[in-house]
Amino acid sequence: MPTSPHAPHPQACLIVHGPDQPGLVSAITAMITRNDANIITLDQYSQDEHESTFFQRVVFSGPDLGAALPEIEADVEKTLTPFGMQWRLTDQSVPKRMAILVSKSDHCLLELLWRHRRGELPVTIPMVISNHPDAAEDVRSFGIPFVHIPSQGPDKSGAERQILDLLKGNVDFVVLARYMQIISEDFLDEIDVPVINIHHSFLPAFIGAAPYRKARERGVKLIGATSHYVTKDLDEGPIIEQDVARVDHRMNAAALQARGAYVERAVLSRAVQWHAEDRIIRDGNQTIVFNDRP
Amino acid sequence: MPTSPHAPHPQACLIVHGPDQPGLVSAITAMITRNDANIITLDQYSQDEHESTFFQRVVFSGPDLGAALPEIEADVEKTLTPFGMQWRLTDQSVPKRMAILVSKSDHCLLELLWRHRRGELPVTIPMVISNHPDAAEDVRSFGIPFVHIPSQGPDKSGAERQILDLLKGNVDFVVLARYMQIISEDFLDEIDVPVINIHHSFLPAFIGAAPYRKARERGVKLIGATSHYVTKDLDEGPIIEQDVARVDHRMNAAALQARGAYVERAVLSRAVQWHAEDRIIRDGNQTIVFNDRP
Amino acid sequence: MPTSPHAPHPQACLIVHGPDQPGLVSAITAMITRNDANIITLDQYSQDEHESTFFQRVVFSGPDLGAALPEIEADVEKTLTPFGMQWRLTDQSVPKRMAILVSKSDHCLLELLWRHRRGELPVTIPMVISNHPDAAEDVRSFGIPFVHIPSQGPDKSGAERQILDLLKGNVDFVVLARYMQIISEDFLDEIDVPVINIHHSFLPAFIGAAPYRKARERGVKLIGATSHYVTKDLDEGPIIEQDVARVDHRMNAAALQARGAYVERAVLSRAVQWHAEDRIIRDGNQTIVFNDRP
Amino acid sequence: MPTSPHAPHPQACLIVHGPDQPGLVSAITAMITRNDANIITLDQYSQDEHESTFFQRVVFSGPDLGAALPEIEADVEKTLTPFGMQWRLTDQSVPKRMAILVSKSDHCLLELLWRHRRGELPVTIPMVISNHPDAAEDVRSFGIPFVHIPSQGPDKSGAERQILDLLKGNVDFVVLARYMQIISEDFLDEIDVPVINIHHSFLPAFIGAAPYRKARERGVKLIGATSHYVTKDLDEGPIIEQDVARVDHRMNAAALQARGAYVERAVLSRAVQWHAEDRIIRDGNQTIVFNDRP
Repeated sequence: MPTSPHAPHPQACLIVHGPDQPGLVSAITAMITRNDANIITLDQYSQDEHESTFFQRVVFSGPDLGAALPEIEADVEKTLTPFGMQWRLTDQSVPKRMAILVSKSDHCLLELLWRHRRGELPVTIPMVISNHPDAAEDVRSFGIPFVHIPSQGPDKSGAERQILDLLKGNVDFVVLARYMQIISEDFLDEIDVPVINIHHSFLPAFIGAAPYRKARERGVKLIGATSHYVTKDLDEGPIIEQDVARVDHRMNAAALQARGAYVERAVLSRAVQWHAEDRIIRDGNQTIVFNDRP
Repeated sequence: MPTSPHAPHPQACLIVHGPDQPGLVSAITAMITRNDANIITLDQYSQDEHESTFFQRVVFSGPDLGAALPEIEADVEKTLTPFGMQWRLTDQSVPKRMAILVSKSDHCLLELLWRHRRGELPVTIPMVISNHPDAAEDVRSFGIPFVHIPSQGPDKSGAERQILDLLKGNVDFVVLARYMQIISEDFLDEIDVPVINIHHSFLPAFIGAAPYRKARERGVKLIGATSHYVTKDLDEGPIIEQDVARVDHRMNAAALQARGAYVERAVLSRAVQWHAEDRIIRDGNQTIVFNDRP
Repeated sequence: MPTSPHAPHPQACLIVHGPDQPGLVSAITAMITRNDANIITLDQYSQDEHESTFFQRVVFSGPDLGAALPEIEADVEKTLTPFGMQWRLTDQSVPKRMAILVSKSDHCLLELLWRHRRGELPVTIPMVISNHPDAAEDVRSFGIPFVHIPSQGPDKSGAERQILDLLKGNVDFVVLARYMQIISEDFLDEIDVPVINIHHSFLPAFIGAAPYRKARERGVKLIGATSHYVTKDLDEGPIIEQDVARVDHRMNAAALQARGAYVERAVLSRAVQWHAEDRIIRDGNQTIVFNDRP
Repeated sequence: MPTSPHAPHPQACLIVHGPDQPGLVSAITAMITRNDANIITLDQYSQDEHESTFFQRVVFSGPDLGAALPEIEADVEKTLTPFGMQWRLTDQSVPKRMAILVSKSDHCLLELLWRHRRGELPVTIPMVISNHPDAAEDVRSFGIPFVHIPSQGPDKSGAERQILDLLKGNVDFVVLARYMQIISEDFLDEIDVPVINIHHSFLPAFIGAAPYRKARERGVKLIGATSHYVTKDLDEGPIIEQDVARVDHRMNAAALQARGAYVERAVLSRAVQWHAEDRIIRDGNQTIVFNDRP
């Protein structure tokens, strides 16, 4: 769901987090008001288990917001520096640029392309990259460039190099939509934008490869999928979203995998949407997600 | 879930709604700050389909909040009157007084009593009233008074009179936990506190009596329950919460009813909790629910 | 899930229903055994509310089942005639021929085409027919013929005539995948194969047009979709499958509709799959569904 | 749901499993027919991944079934011995005797007692045993004996001895309804009836103690519970049922635990019901569950 489908004015999103302290909300909202903007939605959360940390997402609009943003940005800085807060301000009329990396399975890829075409994902998709040629025709039928970079053989670092050359400076985040290659630490260092993965398991159960076979062997009654940010600790990055489907003794590993595909595409789509809409704040190895789920 | 289980300071809740206008959020948060209170949670929503209406719920805390509340109340009035807003301010350390009316089925009643004993419902329960004596022992085992007021015969208005005499001035809201008597308009007029009902159907399907039999006859694959505020339009009051359970051809009307009981008790419990925690704002025949559902 | 993904032998499905009586199961299973076939799955149900009715679905396999089927069919007849049962025997190696009728919304259509391409729907799709040209390219990219038959103007019966001429004798069932034209009684009479519809509402709530607008006005907290067989009583045919999604006050009718699309495509896909796999028996205005849901 | 709420005749349940082979279903159903019994429900499953194993559950009824059971049992033996099958025959009019072991948390305990009182669990409950005295009054208010056997101190084996002396010969299965003591291998050897546990986590994630704290630290978006048979491998026994609830960043470990309690009681109740109704067959470390879930 778009943040506000019938908003007449352009919108901006301000994300703030840092040490909680009196007067913070009041200072932020007053700042928005004095810049002639109107608050559309405001979500906040105070994590008070150890030291208290404050998280806020404000979406606001104004008639000439595009032109006024640099001035507002300066005011945000002036307002929040005394509080020692971290923040980022994004123009919601500028969609994020999202690259998709994929291998052979097309269920997550096609779901993202189709939701994008329906106008439900506020992103542009400059390219889809795959280590297999299979999806080329499907991707191009959506009017999106497809690049085949084979990763077999001893030249894996060569393939990563090629991918980096394509992505660097051209994308705001990367989605691994069932991309079955290990991402190296060097890649993560150099790409320097968020990378979102779909793990075909309910983490932390069945970490790593062949989770559906493991699930079958353990005789579980639910299978799941997890979308998370990729970090250097494989499968251990901050979780964004998870979901499950019910299974039973009649389903072999192939049947679990077939059913799991529907969970995977739904979970990844929600994670991508929330990231694209600036609804996620990373907090160590956890995420604060100000989602729109009723 | 309690609003904040480890809050060291007392808390208050301010509910505001009325015409949306610039500066409103800023004015409210500044008001809270200047009264030395700290915002714990803040939820807001702007309904902008027709004229734009603003809804907000703020929970805030302060070291001496109890003593300061009258002063804060005056400041709220001074702050919000120029905006023409409706509001209510409640001291969260004062639990609401909840009466339960029940007939023979005990599933909703016992669930409420048990959740209350676990400390999950911020209410007191001054009495349970029933037109049947069956639940007396169960209710009293929770340390709660039980009053039997039979409603059979031509003296229904007499029974209502007795119930009103018990309730008036003693309760902040009434819960019909499978109370199988029609509530008269006069009763609603006179009781003058919110009345919450559980309808054993997914409204607006199968309105009225015998919904499980009707559901069986129609061959539906899901049954549901609806909790709503009671108004003079029977079964048509503002919906608070709904849920469903899956059923199939093997289940006769009795089996549907048995399964439905689990949906009913869950739906009513959530509705009661959200009302008790001041999370619901009525807006015509609809509800704004600032719930804590992830 | 395919009935049995690694079955080495061809399979047949026998559907039986009629008056329950002793010895029926034994007679059917003995008949299968004496024809050198092996029972793969067996589901049965006795409806015993009024007079007792028996329903059974047996899938069995054998090394030369294709050649043996006529002989088996004769034995089924000989076995079941004394019991006065209705039955049908289908060769599971022959996929059903499914036509799809669609208007502008593509979510149900594309889901069916994609599941078919994945090998999850045991059907062939000889054609997609639409009263709008929009989906032509998408459909043909799946290698499936697309026919545009406009239905505007006073020539609606002409359009129905054209559709009937295309379908008659060429399809085993028809799916209305968000086809926004009323189907006439004459059409149903003449087509004489099952027609499956997706109603964008949780029937019997919000029957007819504009259910999302009505749901918004009523302030419901769940929206749903229903797949049913089409009969002459509009929206009143036997229900095959239903599901719901949670919604809240923030969602206007357009947002409800966007979310509802995901429920619709899932519900219709399951209904189509169960029909294609001979899992559904119609019983008056109800369905017995021997589905594979855990 | 009772197996058949309006069955006029007594019922028996036959569970069969062993090597799949032609003629097995036919032989079993013919055997039932020749004993003048009528098949009520029949579920079967063939596990064909390695060698093919056959599992079947048949419920049948007859006017004088109680008196005829010894004779039927002899016929079952004669029928199934040539096939080399394992089997058990149970008289459904004899409820299983279930003991409950519990510690301080009462949510699973009270749910079982209440479902039993509603007539939904076909068991008798000869006793509830606890290492804490807290639940005594609640349990006895249901008319069920409560025994307090403290387990603190160095005398744990003494407590186990006392429990064994109470249980041996008096119960058909044992339910650990949040019983926070390790069960020794000796106990399992000696008790020699099935023991069902509820693990407050979605196994195999967060095995062992403090799963809610671990779930909080890992930042998961769903928490779950698992009911399983207890074996000597702690937390590794065959899984019967699992379910999950959605959580988010706002919930600390205590809030996760409060929400998890509702999942635990539902999961354990279903597992107990299916065991009591002879719906579960153990197959190595997995379970075949012929449940009644639509």
